[in-house]
Amino acid sequence: MSTITRGETVTSAIPACDTGDVSALLERGRTLAAPVLRAAVNRLAAPMDTVAAYHFGWIDVDGRPTDADSGKAVRPALALLSAEAAGAAPETGVPGAVAVELVHNFSLLHDDLMDGDEQRRHRDTVWKVHGPAQAILVGDALFALANEVLLELGTAEAGRATRRLTTATRKLIDGQAQDISYEHRERVTVAECLEMEGNKTGALLACAASIGAVLGGADDRTADVLEAYGYHMGLAFQAVDDLLGIWGDPEATGKQTWSDLRQRKKSLPVVAALAAGGPASERLAAILAEDAKLTDAQLADFDEEEFASRAALIEEAGGREWTSQEARRQHATAIEALDGVDIPSDIRARLVALSDFVVVRKR
Amino acid sequence: MSTITRGETVTSAIPACDTGDVSALLERGRTLAAPVLRAAVNRLAAPMDTVAAYHFGWIDVDGRPTDADSGKAVRPALALLSAEAAGAAPETGVPGAVAVELVHNFSLLHDDLMDGDEQRRHRDTVWKVHGPAQAILVGDALFALANEVLLELGTAEAGRATRRLTTATRKLIDGQAQDISYEHRERVTVAECLEMEGNKTGALLACAASIGAVLGGADDRTADVLEAYGYHMGLAFQAVDDLLGIWGDPEATGKQTWSDLRQRKKSLPVVAALAAGGPASERLAAILAEDAKLTDAQLADFDEEEFASRAALIEEAGGREWTSQEARRQHATAIEALDGVDIPSDIRARLVALSDFVVVRKR
Repeated sequence: MSTITRGETVTSAIPACDTGDVSALLERGRTLAAPVLRAAVNRLAAPMDTVAAYHFGWIDVDGRPTDADSGKAVRPALALLSAEAAGAAPETGVPGAVAVELVHNFSLLHDDLMDGDEQRRHRDTVWKVHGPAQAILVGDALFALANEVLLELGTAEAGRATRRLTTATRKLIDGQAQDISYEHRERVTVAECLEMEGNKTGALLACAASIGAVLGGADDRTADVLEAYGYHMGLAFQAVDDLLGIWGDPEATGKQTWSDLRQRKKSLPVVAALAAGGPASERLAAILAEDAKLTDAQLADFDEEEFASRAALIEEAGGREWTSQEARRQHATAIEALDGVDIPSDIRARLVALSDFVVVRKR
Repeated sequence: MSTITRGETVTSAIPACDTGDVSALLERGRTLAAPVLRAAVNRLAAPMDTVAAYHFGWIDVDGRPTDADSGKAVRPALALLSAEAAGAAPETGVPGAVAVELVHNFSLLHDDLMDGDEQRRHRDTVWKVHGPAQAILVGDALFALANEVLLELGTAEAGRATRRLTTATRKLIDGQAQDISYEHRERVTVAECLEMEGNKTGALLACAASIGAVLGGADDRTADVLEAYGYHMGLAFQAVDDLLGIWGDPEATGKQTWSDLRQRKKSLPVVAALAAGGPASERLAAILAEDAKLTDAQLADFDEEEFASRAALIEEAGGREWTSQEARRQHATAIEALDGVDIPSDIRARLVALSDFVVVRKR
C-alpha cells in the first residue's frame, strides 16, 4: 500500500542501466526536435498557433513565455535512435520525431475534451481555457501538420513513414474508442485491456521506434522489428503507468493519490485483480459494483481510506504483482525483438537502456 | 426578394450546358466511388463504423438501411474527370475521390459540433444523436482513413496526392478557424470573406480537381492548373451557396427561409452590402449592430417580415447582384485556368459542363 518510488516496482529482473546515458538521449531528442516542432506549430493560422503554444506549455494562459515542462520526451529520443539503428544520422529521424509528437498531442487535445479532463501536466486543459471548438480545431490542425512535416520531404521514404504514422494514428483512435466504450461496461477482460493499451500507447511508441529507420531507408523487416520493440516497450510503459495511477507518489506524478481509482479507470491492476478470482477479487467486484451506482460527485466525497482499502484489495487479489510482472514481460519481449535484425551494438545498447528507463521511471 | 429557382441567378452569362451529360458524370462518380468508400468506412472498429454509416446516410438512427441522399457528388465526379485530364482511366481517380470525400465528411462532423448545428441533410447531426465524443472520434478516424486509402497504394503518385490532400485539409481547418473568429467580429471585409470561403470550399474542390491527375501521373504544372480550376469553381459554388442561403427556395434547399440571416452568417451578400456604402448599406449596418445585442433566442423570435426586410436591404445595397457577378467571375476564371495546359477536348468540355452545373444548381 506504500506509494512507488523510483525503481521499486519492476527493477528486480532488469540489469542496472546507465541513466546518465538515457538522460543524454532524452536531451538530444528534445534539443533536435524542439525547434522543428516549434517552427511547424508556428505555421498555424491565428489563433490556433497561440492555442497550440499554450497546449505545448510554451506560453501561459496570458500568452507569456513559460519554462516548458516538455515531458519525458521518450518518443523523440526513440525516433532519433531509430534512424541510427538503420545506419543513418540521428538528424534523419527529426521529421519523424516531430510528426509523432504532433500526432500524440492531437490525440491529447481531443481525448481531454472527450474525457472531460480539466487538467494536464498541472495546467488547465485547452478545452477548459480556450473552449471545445479550439480543442477540436487545433487537434485537427496538429494531425494535418504531422502529415505535412513528413510529406514535404518529398521522398519515397517519407511516403512510407507517413503510411506507418497513419496506421498508428488509426490504432490510437481505435484505442480511444475502446476506452470510451469500456467506461460503460461493468467487466473488461485482461485481453481487452491489453488490446486497448496496445492501441492507445503501444502503436505510437512503435511508430516512434521505427519512423527514423524508415526515413533512413531501412527495409520493411528492420522497420517491423523496431516497431515490435516499440510496441512492447509501450505496453511495459503503460503497465508502469497503470501502477503509478494507483500507487504512484503524488509528489512525483503530480496526480492525486489513488488517481485512477477516483476516475473508475479499468486499468490493468484492476482488471487483473477482478480476473484472478478468490475472496479479495470477489470482494473488490462487489465493492466496484456498488461504486457503479454512485455519481461521480458521490465517489469524489470518499475519504482516503476508502480508496486505500480498494487499492489493498487489488493488491491482495494479485493485481499489483501481475501488472508489475507484465511490465517485466513486455520489457523482455521488447528487448528480444531487437534480435530479429542486425543493429550496431552501441545503438542496440541505447535502445535497451531507453527501454529500461521506461519501466523504472517514477512519473 | 423572390426566392431563387433553377438557373435564375447566374445563368445569363453562361452558355447552356448539356445537363444530361453532367448527370451522367455525377452518376459515374457516385457509382465508382461509393463501394470503395463503404469498404473503407467498414474498416472502422465498432461503434465508429455504425456512427459513420449514420453520418453518410446509409442507415437511420435505429441502424436500418436507408435510401441515402448522397448529395450532389460533385467532388467524386471531378476526381474521375481529373484522372482523364491526365490521360489516365477514370478509375485511377477513385482512391482520390474516396479520400476527398472522407476529408470532406471529417470536416462536416467536426464543424457541426463546433458550430452547434443540429441538422444536416434533413437529419439530426452525429453529435446530436451519438454525442460529441463520437463526432470527434469518427471525424478523426475518417481523416486518418483518407490518408490510408491513398498511401496504401504504395506509389510515388500516392505520396504526392496525399501531400496535396494534406495541404487542402490544412486550408479547410484554417477556413473553419476564420469562420469561428469572424462570428465574434462586427465587421468582416469582402477580402476576408473570400479568403475564408477559398479555404473552406475552394481548397477541397481544388484538390478533387487535381488528385485524379496526380494519381494518373500528371506533372506538377498540369496538377496546378487543375487545382486552380477547382479552386475558382469552389468559389463560384460558394457564392451560389451564399445566395441560396438567403434567397434559396426552402423546398429545394431543405433549409428555412432566410436561413443564413437567421444564423447571422457574414456571407458574401452581407459583407458586400456592408462594404458598398450608401443609405441601404448604412441602414443594414445599423440594424445588424442592433441584432448583435440580441440573444439567439430573441433573434429566432423574429417573424418572416423582419428577415425579409434585412434581405431587401442587402439587395438594395447591391450585395445580391455583386455576389451573383462574383459567381460568374469565378466561374469564368475557373474555365480560363484550363487553357494553361493541354487537356483532351472532350474532357475539357466535361470540366466546363460540371463548372456550369455548379453555378446554376438550385440546392
